[in-house]
Amino acid sequence: MSGKIIQLQEYVCFRGLTEDRLSTVSQLANVVSYPPGQVLFQEGKSGDSVYFITKGKVDIFYSIGEEGPAKVDQVFAEELIGCSALIPPFTYIATTKSQTDIEVLKIDANALRSLMKENCPLGFTIQQNIMQMLMNRITNFRLGLWTTYS
Amino acid sequence: MSGKIIQLQEYVCFRGLTEDRLSTVSQLANVVSYPPGQVLFQEGKSGDSVYFITKGKVDIFYSIGEEGPAKVDQVFAEELIGCSALIPPFTYIATTKSQTDIEVLKIDANALRSLMKENCPLGFTIQQNIMQMLMNRITNFRLGLWTTYS
Repeated sequence: MSGKIIQLQEYVCFRGLTEDRLSTVSQLANVVSYPPGQVLFQEGKSGDSVYFITKGKVDIFYSIGEEGPAKVDQVFAEELIGCSALIPPFTYIATTKSQTDIEVLKIDANALRSLMKENCPLGFTIQQNIMQMLMNRITNFRLGLWTTYS
Repeated sequence: MSGKIIQLQEYVCFRGLTEDRLSTVSQLANVVSYPPGQVLFQEGKSGDSVYFITKGKVDIFYSIGEEGPAKVDQVFAEELIGCSALIPPFTYIATTKSQTDIEVLKIDANALRSLMKENCPLGFTIQQNIMQMLMNRITNFRLGLWTTYS
């Protein structure tokens, strides 16, 4: 158990949580590996999990117009994907697929939402961390650091 | 007073707040107009206000390398700017300047931070709205909708 707690402390989205709260959240999270080409979640589907990428690259696809899903972005380790599972109406706004072998922290979004609602200070801290991550992402877009498609 | 409450309900960042909470937040907010060229806040300075743009355009500048601040983005009505004033270390990460005549809802960030901390459900709801707005912004970047510099 204590190994799992220490591990969670290293994730940006769980910064600032007390050991007790880290311990609680750790019950909802699992480290999972996937091969390339694995769909993690699909646009329009119910947001059941949030993923923090620890290794590898993930492609992001959006349905645009009448064409099928188009690749619009890629994200790397230290990025959180599936945040829309934590925001009403809790529905994914994109489809994601592993581009390489990946390792992710897969977090049960339904349970995390309940926990964040029941324990508001915990939810507040996690949301602050997510806001920080989203703002970093916007900064990267503004500075052109997202144009690294390989 | 009730006029001010109704007005706040129209702002995306205050969706989902009860009338009591809207009333409380409305004490921290003022509608302010500025001419073109007005610096709203500067990169690296203490985050004292958050601004919700209601009319006009605002340019975003970042200091990049050894050059002076460079324009990296522009934002329009219905956008929130200065969100970094709500996230530790509460320091602006960009400089913003009105491109046109603008009207903004200027919110006292110090007081809002205190209020969000004291009244966690209120803070949680406002954070969710901000997360939604940040994610919309990321979607716009992904879809190339930000490349509308004039």
